[in-house]
Amino acid sequence: MTTLRIALAQIDTCVGDVDGNAAAVLSWARRAADAGAHLVVFPEMTLTGYPIEDLALRASFRRGAEAALQRTAAELAAAGLGDLAVLVGTVGERGQGDVDAPDDRGLPTNQAVLLQHGRVVTRYDKHHLPNYGVFDEFRIFAPGDATCVVDVAGRRVGVVVCEDIWQDGGPVAQMDENDVDLLVVLNGSPYEEGKGHVRVELAQRRAREVDAPVAYVNLVGGQDDLVFDGGSFVVGTDGELLAGAPQFVEHLLLWDLAERGTAPVRGAVAAPLAPDEEVYRAIVTGLAGYVRKNGFRSVVLGLSGGIDSALTAAIAADAIGGENVVGVSMPSSFSSAHSKDDAADLAKRLGADLRVQPIASVVDAFQAQLALEGVAEENLQARVRGVLLMAVSNREGHLVIAPGNKSELATGYATIYDAGSIGGFAPLKDVDKSRVWALARWRNAYAEARGEVPPIPESSITKPPSAELRPGQLDQDSLPPYDLLDEVLDAYVEHAEGRAELLARGFDPAVVDKVVTLVDRAEWKRRQYPLGPKVTALAFGRDRRLPVTSRWREP
Amino acid sequence: MTTLRIALAQIDTCVGDVDGNAAAVLSWARRAADAGAHLVVFPEMTLTGYPIEDLALRASFRRGAEAALQRTAAELAAAGLGDLAVLVGTVGERGQGDVDAPDDRGLPTNQAVLLQHGRVVTRYDKHHLPNYGVFDEFRIFAPGDATCVVDVAGRRVGVVVCEDIWQDGGPVAQMDENDVDLLVVLNGSPYEEGKGHVRVELAQRRAREVDAPVAYVNLVGGQDDLVFDGGSFVVGTDGELLAGAPQFVEHLLLWDLAERGTAPVRGAVAAPLAPDEEVYRAIVTGLAGYVRKNGFRSVVLGLSGGIDSALTAAIAADAIGGENVVGVSMPSSFSSAHSKDDAADLAKRLGADLRVQPIASVVDAFQAQLALEGVAEENLQARVRGVLLMAVSNREGHLVIAPGNKSELATGYATIYDAGSIGGFAPLKDVDKSRVWALARWRNAYAEARGEVPPIPESSITKPPSAELRPGQLDQDSLPPYDLLDEVLDAYVEHAEGRAELLARGFDPAVVDKVVTLVDRAEWKRRQYPLGPKVTALAFGRDRRLPVTSRWREP
Repeated sequence: MTTLRIALAQIDTCVGDVDGNAAAVLSWARRAADAGAHLVVFPEMTLTGYPIEDLALRASFRRGAEAALQRTAAELAAAGLGDLAVLVGTVGERGQGDVDAPDDRGLPTNQAVLLQHGRVVTRYDKHHLPNYGVFDEFRIFAPGDATCVVDVAGRRVGVVVCEDIWQDGGPVAQMDENDVDLLVVLNGSPYEEGKGHVRVELAQRRAREVDAPVAYVNLVGGQDDLVFDGGSFVVGTDGELLAGAPQFVEHLLLWDLAERGTAPVRGAVAAPLAPDEEVYRAIVTGLAGYVRKNGFRSVVLGLSGGIDSALTAAIAADAIGGENVVGVSMPSSFSSAHSKDDAADLAKRLGADLRVQPIASVVDAFQAQLALEGVAEENLQARVRGVLLMAVSNREGHLVIAPGNKSELATGYATIYDAGSIGGFAPLKDVDKSRVWALARWRNAYAEARGEVPPIPESSITKPPSAELRPGQLDQDSLPPYDLLDEVLDAYVEHAEGRAELLARGFDPAVVDKVVTLVDRAEWKRRQYPLGPKVTALAFGRDRRLPVTSRWREP
Repeated sequence: MTTLRIALAQIDTCVGDVDGNAAAVLSWARRAADAGAHLVVFPEMTLTGYPIEDLALRASFRRGAEAALQRTAAELAAAGLGDLAVLVGTVGERGQGDVDAPDDRGLPTNQAVLLQHGRVVTRYDKHHLPNYGVFDEFRIFAPGDATCVVDVAGRRVGVVVCEDIWQDGGPVAQMDENDVDLLVVLNGSPYEEGKGHVRVELAQRRAREVDAPVAYVNLVGGQDDLVFDGGSFVVGTDGELLAGAPQFVEHLLLWDLAERGTAPVRGAVAAPLAPDEEVYRAIVTGLAGYVRKNGFRSVVLGLSGGIDSALTAAIAADAIGGENVVGVSMPSSFSSAHSKDDAADLAKRLGADLRVQPIASVVDAFQAQLALEGVAEENLQARVRGVLLMAVSNREGHLVIAPGNKSELATGYATIYDAGSIGGFAPLKDVDKSRVWALARWRNAYAEARGEVPPIPESSITKPPSAELRPGQLDQDSLPPYDLLDEVLDAYVEHAEGRAELLARGFDPAVVDKVVTLVDRAEWKRRQYPLGPKVTALAFGRDRRLPVTSRWREP
């Protein structure tokens, strides 16, 4: 028995791109073999991408994935990688390879597959199918009920998938009698602020249960509203962190499983990111993935000179390069001079393409027919900007991105179909206004520490926020101060506290009433927002299903 | 032992409106008592409305519902209705009233509650929690595990909730030993074309299993994208349909349970609706509910003279009265004379308020800055119309409704944010183009049969469809003929057939490729559509969860 070298291939897959994902398996398996690995482990549902949602229910999709799996096994062997044990994830079907298959044979499963010597060696169907938050797996998959321990170079390797280690009982609890030398976990664990620690603690618990190290390989990259942060790692039998990959990049993490009874091998452990940097990089990853996976190369957004669009543009520049960012300044008669200057300054700092499209003549043409006043007039200006952005997008092929933030989305303090809410992706959808400022300050400080030009003009950070849709308008005329608003939103939305709990915390009743009323009425507006990356426990999107029409009012 | 008179109260609840729903229980219980009923049965989740989605996870909501339940029990007694047995649905908590409650006490349940003599007599938690299509109950509720048989005037009445009768095994299977005299089922069963027969057949099977009649009471009314059609009924022990309520209206269906061993009592059975009428009324019900439950009294939509907007306007007039419909004709230089005439003719037939807002001056103002060509220019015109509608809505408080149909939604043959896709509700979202024509013809024939003016101008039905965004443009230049397109869509979308199956059916490969490519690329556009009522097995919305970003292409 010798040391077993394992490689955790933390890669960025794309849902539905079975050919591209299969090609990535081949190329990363080659890298693993070149590094002397005996076993390479890929993330959950490698070949199909994750999460596949209702594509799982389409038979032609499952056939396509199975064909790619068989082809991959053959191609690995043809490439001289037949000796390497390759663990990939895919969509399976219940009862595959089981002669005593139960009645539900053919139902889709979330499967881990061992490929070696040109063939499928073993299949394992995930037991625990999460059905909360962003997860709908119980809807689309049938659960497995067998455990899986494979032999790799004489060592016994237990295999489970993601949620299997989050639930007590199940395959890991059944495994301690199998005396495994190593437990590997294929994951598609979406990023969420502060979740890294939870994953490690969980793996530590399971390591003690099976009395063996745990190797946790996670997906990386943006997929619709989910961001997978990678951060794959290995913990030893006693819980020690023995190896750790960086977050938000593809990475091959190598680690050696020493012989039983000898001291564990310590590998490289990437330094953890500071909280603001972690969230910032999550958002960059989400946007970059969405742009690339949808076949875009560039984005367009409105630049108002305000903090939301400034931070969004900086994120876009970090995601796809400033030269691929088009900013459109769309001043009205209510736009201050500093707004226009700040927009131009920002574009210059980022190396972005700045266009200026004043809206006055178009607004005048509408007003000649409509003679709107008040909020209707304000919204008209905002929507003219939305149309301008969509027109530039149509003409030049950029993806429109929306700078609206979570605070305005939660309260409905936004014009639907304006430049803040139209488009395909809203990078700040899950970032409240207080954090918008924090991330902007972090990004500038990060640049300064490197001797680079801070991307965001200081005045965009320091000036009081305004929609500039009427003279002297300020957000704070309509909303509580953002630090207070965001605190109430966190309690009411993220933690589902009721009015009674909010009052018990000591919040001003008038503020509570205002925020609760705004949030309860904004559900329909939230539906109009583009996708945006999830970075907190509870985003607006897949993980929050609320009726649009509801007369429920907090008592 | 005497005849037991039961009343099935087919009422229209609103999600979250616990006070309004409780008031409805009181008033319909009064009607039931006045009609001599011993037992009145309300639909699933009466007090909370249905479906409550993630509101179930909010403790303050559950407390509010429980307070309303207790208050209703007391108010029924105070109103002199204490002797009446009242079965209502609500959100419960697992372990309520159970001293040996398991560990998951406090988890929300989908509950039926018997109220009598001013108090809660019995609680039953639904066993089977559907987790497919539009249903997310397994996500939000804990299942019950006890059966429920209550005594009403000396007769044994079994109580179950909706999905409990759709799954074999479960509470009904356990009930045959209990010797029930009657099985009542509280339902929130969404409308779907042709589903009525399935429900009756299912009830017939359960009646034979428990050897007793089955009384099925269903919710009625529109709730977001769901339409509940009512159609409550009673089947006898041998499966005979003994009583049946009409669809799409609130109704109190009375039926007498005769003594065992005597012949069953035959009550009134409403005549079934013809297929086109049923779908038409479903859409009317969906729109009427959405408008009213969201506090609107009127709607506004663009009238192009085409069939989609004509049918949508006719549906709106039937839902809320023609005098509450505002139609805006927004001609461009490409609009034909007959388009403007047809829009005016339609408004006159409906008694709708017609506005004319030519778009030329606004488009010119945009074009002076943008100089767009091709599709970008076409989309600009379309989006100017969207802004005009939102402006009229903002100024006057009408709900904007979107006339886009399922065929264009499926294929992405639409401009996002145009007059066909902006707004709060899209009545034809689940109606393909072929059926748009069929429903228009049905509605006109229905009027003619009554000696009324047909609401839809004949030329809107007969002319070839065109977006009129460039000279001579016809839908058929870009799409296969609609009858063929809709057939392929039905197979590919509704029945999830792959390319291989489509070709095996004999469809032209070029048509299959075109349709499959269009549908696969349109997912993001579909996300921008407003809510719309579900009328087929598979709508675009809650019951179809697909990744937005997917490179899956049918092989």
